[in-house]
Amino acid sequence: MSQLSPQDLLTQLKWRYATKQFDTSKSIPDETWSALATSLILTPSSFGLQPWHFIVVKNQEIREELLPHSWGQKQVTDCSHFVVLAAKTSMSEVAIDSFLKRTIKVRGGEIDQLNPYRDMMLGFIGQMDESKQLQWAKLQTYIALGQLMTSAAVLGIDACPMEGINPTEYDRILELPEKGLTTSVACALGYRSAEDKYATAPKVRFEMSESLTLL
Amino acid sequence: MSQLSPQDLLTQLKWRYATKQFDTSKSIPDETWSALATSLILTPSSFGLQPWHFIVVKNQEIREELLPHSWGQKQVTDCSHFVVLAAKTSMSEVAIDSFLKRTIKVRGGEIDQLNPYRDMMLGFIGQMDESKQLQWAKLQTYIALGQLMTSAAVLGIDACPMEGINPTEYDRILELPEKGLTTSVACALGYRSAEDKYATAPKVRFEMSESLTLL
Repeated sequence: MSQLSPQDLLTQLKWRYATKQFDTSKSIPDETWSALATSLILTPSSFGLQPWHFIVVKNQEIREELLPHSWGQKQVTDCSHFVVLAAKTSMSEVAIDSFLKRTIKVRGGEIDQLNPYRDMMLGFIGQMDESKQLQWAKLQTYIALGQLMTSAAVLGIDACPMEGINPTEYDRILELPEKGLTTSVACALGYRSAEDKYATAPKVRFEMSESLTLL
Repeated sequence: MSQLSPQDLLTQLKWRYATKQFDTSKSIPDETWSALATSLILTPSSFGLQPWHFIVVKNQEIREELLPHSWGQKQVTDCSHFVVLAAKTSMSEVAIDSFLKRTIKVRGGEIDQLNPYRDMMLGFIGQMDESKQLQWAKLQTYIALGQLMTSAAVLGIDACPMEGINPTEYDRILELPEKGLTTSVACALGYRSAEDKYATAPKVRFEMSESLTLL
């Protein structure tokens, strides 16, 4: 049985918190990291188009360079694995065709059979200007952020999502624009420090009745 | 032990797929649904501001009304629980203060102690016009979508994320504008039909080397 019980899921989701202080002496083991990397890859996206790229920064020099552009949040340098989730800045016909080619490689068949699907995707993408395409791609990266954080939680790995970063500086340091990418959001992963007092602070959420309506 | 092993997580993430056909005879049991609803509530958000509202549509008449505005996707009417993730259309000082009040209620202390945090949030929100605030709120709802889908996967519950819906019509039917909300995305949850041929189709993802770079 590879599933979690509802109670165990809740235990893990309540255990997680936005880790402020990581234990710098601990590193995520290979097998666990491999599952987290795969959780990013397996993230569902609109039409399956995966308009993203994930940069995992282990190199300490690059992290030091990113730190001043991260509101000084030490998680960038102190965590085990620092992930930058980048979005494709625009969706071209080429991107759609490389996805369709991949589909045929994985599922077999002839690429022409996918023409109706191709037309639908081109129609969807074509109705958006570049700025809308980027917004759409960023939304997809946030699904990946959610999948990554929930996956980490159920594996007992700590995480801190980070929106407070300077995308322009991140883009420059990680050389993203030349790859048609831009920084969307980041996530530090690793193990909480025993000194992080936020670990035991009660979680602040609105009452369920304020955030959820049953019709 | 309430965690999953890396292998079990991968088993569940590979098991999930965007369910096209739900088994209309099956309903998610109360305890499992309660965990999924709580996973939505516990979703991390920027500053903890939770700029969202979740509408769970069980009512079959309302679902029938939503169907023609959902590219005719039958998941809307056939699933067990149909969730619409809505974003707050703007972030007012009032919204920030109600979050701070909640913080004091949960964690204790005096609200004045939170003034530096209040100023920081007001500064962050204030630098965005209403359209940017809505974009930011929508991004947060996509974290919730990710957390919901991953939570469903580890519980063995099927899901179908749905961007192909008409937000204007959804807003009208669910009476969201008068509550300062707008439809962001939806997710159908329940159990796959034995007839859904997509359940066994290999998952199409780019090679890890194409989507992930280690620095």
